Amino acid sequence: MTLSRKPLKGMRELTPGEKRIEDYVIKRLREAGVAYGFEEYETPVLEPLELFLAKSGSELAVKQSYNFTDKGGRKLIMRPELTPSLARMVAASGELIYPVKWMSFPVCYRYERPQRGRVREFVQFNLDILGVSGLEAELEVFLVLRRIMSSLGASRGQYVIRYSSRKLASGILESCGITEEEMAQAYAVIDKKDKIKPDEWEELVRKTIKDERNADTIIKFASCSDPDVPWLSEAAGGSEAFDEIVRFSGMLKDAGILEAQFDASVVRGLDYYTGIVFEVMDTGGKNRRAICGGGRYDNLVGMFGGQKVTGVGFGLGLLTLDLFLETYDLMPEGISGKHPADIFLAVYSDGERAFAVNFAEKLRDVGISVEIDITGKNLSKQLKIADRKSIGYIVVIGPEEVVSGRITLRNMTSGIETECEVSEVSGILIDRNLCGEAN
Amino acid sequence: MTLSRKPLKGMRELTPGEKRIEDYVIKRLREAGVAYGFEEYETPVLEPLELFLAKSGSELAVKQSYNFTDKGGRKLIMRPELTPSLARMVAASGELIYPVKWMSFPVCYRYERPQRGRVREFVQFNLDILGVSGLEAELEVFLVLRRIMSSLGASRGQYVIRYSSRKLASGILESCGITEEEMAQAYAVIDKKDKIKPDEWEELVRKTIKDERNADTIIKFASCSDPDVPWLSEAAGGSEAFDEIVRFSGMLKDAGILEAQFDASVVRGLDYYTGIVFEVMDTGGKNRRAICGGGRYDNLVGMFGGQKVTGVGFGLGLLTLDLFLETYDLMPEGISGKHPADIFLAVYSDGERAFAVNFAEKLRDVGISVEIDITGKNLSKQLKIADRKSIGYIVVIGPEEVVSGRITLRNMTSGIETECEVSEVSGILIDRNLCGEAN
Repeated sequence: MTLSRKPLKGMRELTPGEKRIEDYVIKRLREAGVAYGFEEYETPVLEPLELFLAKSGSELAVKQSYNFTDKGGRKLIMRPELTPSLARMVAASGELIYPVKWMSFPVCYRYERPQRGRVREFVQFNLDILGVSGLEAELEVFLVLRRIMSSLGASRGQYVIRYSSRKLASGILESCGITEEEMAQAYAVIDKKDKIKPDEWEELVRKTIKDERNADTIIKFASCSDPDVPWLSEAAGGSEAFDEIVRFSGMLKDAGILEAQFDASVVRGLDYYTGIVFEVMDTGGKNRRAICGGGRYDNLVGMFGGQKVTGVGFGLGLLTLDLFLETYDLMPEGISGKHPADIFLAVYSDGERAFAVNFAEKLRDVGISVEIDITGKNLSKQLKIADRKSIGYIVVIGPEEVVSGRITLRNMTSGIETECEVSEVSGILIDRNLCGEAN
Repeated sequence: MTLSRKPLKGMRELTPGEKRIEDYVIKRLREAGVAYGFEEYETPVLEPLELFLAKSGSELAVKQSYNFTDKGGRKLIMRPELTPSLARMVAASGELIYPVKWMSFPVCYRYERPQRGRVREFVQFNLDILGVSGLEAELEVFLVLRRIMSSLGASRGQYVIRYSSRKLASGILESCGITEEEMAQAYAVIDKKDKIKPDEWEELVRKTIKDERNADTIIKFASCSDPDVPWLSEAAGGSEAFDEIVRFSGMLKDAGILEAQFDASVVRGLDYYTGIVFEVMDTGGKNRRAICGGGRYDNLVGMFGGQKVTGVGFGLGLLTLDLFLETYDLMPEGISGKHPADIFLAVYSDGERAFAVNFAEKLRDVGISVEIDITGKNLSKQLKIADRKSIGYIVVIGPEEVVSGRITLRNMTSGIETECEVSEVSGILIDRNLCGEAN
């Protein structure tokens, strides 16, 4: 039997070059969270199925997930998202200092057909604020999102943070007599608005919502792109949800978050949202899947039977973010090819090996990354390896070097050679700031 | 139905404080790998079951693993270890530059009863060299291990890198007529030597290996703690495996790796090892589970039907390493409580919020982490939050600050207050090197 050389379809396998690109993005995301005082945590990949059945809705938990029964008869799920686990963790912690501001980089799993922007194993960035009922929490989350995008080089016109309110949407839908059973269907239809062509969408609405007047209402509502649209203030004015969205819109202007834009068609797919919902979208139209989706979930923690804790947060997909960065050519050049070693130590023959190993260890002790030859091949083959790995400096250790204790440091870019004592190498390399990027 | 507030038994859930401790250890491990030019990669958590059946042996792949059939009828496994996936990835890559020196931090899964040093979901550090057939590869791996341990503060007497050779063991066992069927049993018995009491172990050997002379041989062999023991050179002298172990022992001495020690009882549990095998053990006897285990596997990549690629590597368990660090009190103090925010910005009332948010953004732009109040609570409650989060500096933004543009920076440790212009804060904080630890 020959084993397959490919990973399973849709799974995440990264060569060092691909990993360096992911690391670059993760570093920016983490820095953005740290800038606001967010702390990192982790939860398990394997969870009880019932946790996600109760929290995410059965579509996600059963149909679109990897779930199975373990040897002990437990029904398990490989998490399709993080928020229910976070809520569980917060509900279980007695001593948290609120507001809790946490972030995480979970690997998540969905059993879906892989396609552009969607795979079966993926990394998210999750960021949540718990214990704050005011809109200041939403505002801070939007500030984080803007910082993420600008730190990755995105400019304002390239993306938009679209937001609306679940409360506003449900109020409008209820007021025109849509029943609770139809509600989920109505949300699903609204959610499709920017995923298909306008006329196709209208047709879909009319096909799904039989009552003509209700269909009209949904079409009008979902087309509102400003809380000040007269139709909307007439339909919802005076309601708590409407006041809130007007107030939030003002707060965003005060804070200068010009990237944010009201859009009543934003409802997001997850069952547990209760207030403001939002998503980050590419404005160029090439990437139609949201880079990030989130919202307020005020009842999630309380469902574990303890105190109620309000929450606001988002999940940001690294894959959709990557597609965005590629589209606008925002990935800095040369990241994937950057080998970690500062210096390659060629060893002339086995007679010099002990000396060379010792010398390499001293360089490493002061923070220099050294790749020493371990192949025992001849010198020209060793130098070819160093060249193919694009390592910046080369030193050859031969019998002369061992006797004299003097070596020649060759800069592979400039070709300049510097002769120096063994003890001086680290000083020279550090002066040239070779190791400044160690982290 | 009330949902459980606990994660599944043996699963990995880390609060921010626990995560900071893990991050500290991972940073040291990563730095040790980078010092030798190792590059990071990733492979999937979900793999075809057959990959591990073929590579790790059925005990691990079937009995001790989470495996299941997915909706498409595929037999899957949540990886119990990383090496088979690495071998697959290397076999599939056409353009690798050898020697390949790769490392990874996989989360792995085993369906075993949780106990001290053993859980069901765990992080490993894996480091491998591929494409080097000489002992220089083993030597480099031992150098990395020594650097890991010393960078974490371990001193020489606290741990030992024990090594032996699979080839040597199989040679001895074959020469005394132990059949291939008995071989696995014999390895398993040898592997138990330091896990139970000496007399119990001898009894076990005699019970498992019926032939008395063979049992004697195994007891004598497994008790050799120096390649120069006369019995061993008599029994194995002249064989390739014996010459190799003597040569390797000499190389370790030349490189000054005094932490390494020959021990014929080291065989390691995995099926695919073919040469030198090794493990890192606590010498204090409190932690009897190996911190790290590894060895040479020269036939693993070739089993995918392409070219043969030799390999040497190890897996190091973060949990057993943690237990070691705890035992010797090597975990630096205060890591778990270190909040990321440099400064807490208290907001006197909503009237100052826009000014405060703007000020916080400017500080973040220059790399300072700022936690601003988003609770809207009164000032004394805000200051209590800052205090409980142990944030080092506090600034209160009130009406006076907004008018004057001058603020007071309060050092919460020393109590010293500095009055300055808003524009000066970042300079003062950076001068005091508050943000030097940003990474």
